[in-house]
Amino acid sequence: MKLPEPPITETALIEALRRRFGPPPPEVVVGIGDDCAAVVVDGESYLLWTVDTLMEGVHFDLAYTPLPQLGWKTLTVNLSDIAAMGGEPRYALLSLGWPPARDRRGALEVADGLARAAQEYGVAVIGGDTVASPGGVALTLTVLGWVPATEMLRRSGAEVGDLIYVTGFLGEAAAGLEILRRRIDVPPELAAPLCRAHLTPRPQLTAGRTLARLGLATALIDLSDGVATDLNHICRAGGVGARLAAEKVPVSPRVAAAAPHLDRAPLDLALTGGEDYQLLFTSPPEKTASLLQAFAREGLPEPLPLGEIVAGEGVWLITDAGETDISGRGFDHFRP
Amino acid sequence: MKLPEPPITETALIEALRRRFGPPPPEVVVGIGDDCAAVVVDGESYLLWTVDTLMEGVHFDLAYTPLPQLGWKTLTVNLSDIAAMGGEPRYALLSLGWPPARDRRGALEVADGLARAAQEYGVAVIGGDTVASPGGVALTLTVLGWVPATEMLRRSGAEVGDLIYVTGFLGEAAAGLEILRRRIDVPPELAAPLCRAHLTPRPQLTAGRTLARLGLATALIDLSDGVATDLNHICRAGGVGARLAAEKVPVSPRVAAAAPHLDRAPLDLALTGGEDYQLLFTSPPEKTASLLQAFAREGLPEPLPLGEIVAGEGVWLITDAGETDISGRGFDHFRP
Repeated sequence: MKLPEPPITETALIEALRRRFGPPPPEVVVGIGDDCAAVVVDGESYLLWTVDTLMEGVHFDLAYTPLPQLGWKTLTVNLSDIAAMGGEPRYALLSLGWPPARDRRGALEVADGLARAAQEYGVAVIGGDTVASPGGVALTLTVLGWVPATEMLRRSGAEVGDLIYVTGFLGEAAAGLEILRRRIDVPPELAAPLCRAHLTPRPQLTAGRTLARLGLATALIDLSDGVATDLNHICRAGGVGARLAAEKVPVSPRVAAAAPHLDRAPLDLALTGGEDYQLLFTSPPEKTASLLQAFAREGLPEPLPLGEIVAGEGVWLITDAGETDISGRGFDHFRP
Repeated sequence: MKLPEPPITETALIEALRRRFGPPPPEVVVGIGDDCAAVVVDGESYLLWTVDTLMEGVHFDLAYTPLPQLGWKTLTVNLSDIAAMGGEPRYALLSLGWPPARDRRGALEVADGLARAAQEYGVAVIGGDTVASPGGVALTLTVLGWVPATEMLRRSGAEVGDLIYVTGFLGEAAAGLEILRRRIDVPPELAAPLCRAHLTPRPQLTAGRTLARLGLATALIDLSDGVATDLNHICRAGGVGARLAAEKVPVSPRVAAAAPHLDRAPLDLALTGGEDYQLLFTSPPEKTASLLQAFAREGLPEPLPLGEIVAGEGVWLITDAGETDISGRGFDHFRP
């Protein structure tokens, strides 16, 4: 008797794909396994290239996602990947999958929101593809950007002793999703900004460029799947571990205020909620003053420290009750 | 009373999208509306960039499409867009949408076929995205390539008097699709190559580079939607018309032989079937000798003439019964 093989996790699938596609040629300085691929274009800069798909019923629900916001988000989640390498986005192609039974004018509303985000962030949409999609609206965007070769930041590079920061408060997008998905009655002055955080994320391009230009970070990633998962990517890529003090995790005050309505622990939303699209980075303690000055000079909110890089592995959350490895407690795109 | 507005055609949708996304910046030499976008990277070459999505239930049916062949086709239809600008492909990113209920090991079979095509055509798969897809397997591929700036070919450029050629016989992929879709009993020595033409198209990269390098074509496109539609793209882009003599259309002898089994006119399969992924191009008559020599030197099959560019508009098929405008009689991705 042959036992059925266990299902493959997303991480194992990506690793298996990487093996199949083989090692990239030498001019590809970053291949499978970071936020963007990076390719040498001339002596001075790298081309950054990313692709991301948003699927109806998985990444969004049209019952509560206005079509223009969907267009905005489709572009901005891709721009967040460029921010996560310290780069600047330039061009985008859109592959628009639209259900035959749905009014095609809706596709133009998606395009309106996408065009607004493109203008806001200086990106030109220069082509694409339109296809019928029987399973719901499916939007794939691919973005090209660039970064000076000496400045590019990656997931790898964190060193023991580095401090761990995020560029903004955590948990708002996850709280907004809960409010929208479960139609929870939350006071509008709280609900509006939380729902906005979920529907119209703002990629942290200026923060990413600032960290890259001034060499202020050792490792960088954007928060798409949540701190628990994304910090673990930094830890695995750097061969290190992380310790987070629960009381230092910068839970958004709005999330804390909304939590009683949501029946979710604020810390859980902040660490495993995902889709914050803030940047998560590591930086040596001796650079703290330069870091704070640089962010202030750019008019950026002060980066928020939440822990430090340690020897070992895993993402350890320190509470009064002890230490727990929370790595992997995030969003697996294939989790049933 | 307000009458419902008529549905938007694919062409009108793309035009509306183009308006929304606005004019591209000056370094974008080709934006929305050709096979690839093209961007200046240095003084000597353009970056070519394309994206294409294949959706289960629209572009393929897993009842008769083996997963490795699906992977092969996903890459090669994108490479055909690079061939259609006279370029050379280099890198690809894969966005893999996989249904949660389907065994993920199938995704690795798709990757096997994709990796084989990548190796065959010298392309490196250097990243991507994996997402759950509730509506069936959805594969988006984006490819980067390059072309010397002085050599790039486009849909526009056809001149009155130019001859119209294709790089190979027509209708095989469409006949193969009929055999597979309708499970038609056709002698295997006919069925096998026709089904192969549908399942594992071969992008005409060498032909495209030869035309570009030697300046042998005035306009170039690949045959994805069929001659009727794709030649009309060349006509519209060049402000010209085309005349095809029905008896000169190079219908594949295999298609002619299989036609009685398929209950389809061979000429219809050849002109409106689509997915041949041959190149369709225009070339001035005085270049005929150079064209034939160049193709022979590269070991390519002789290009097949099927008509000429004329003043006016439309794609006119000349038969004993008269002249008919067949433009637009191809595959509209949104046709219900």
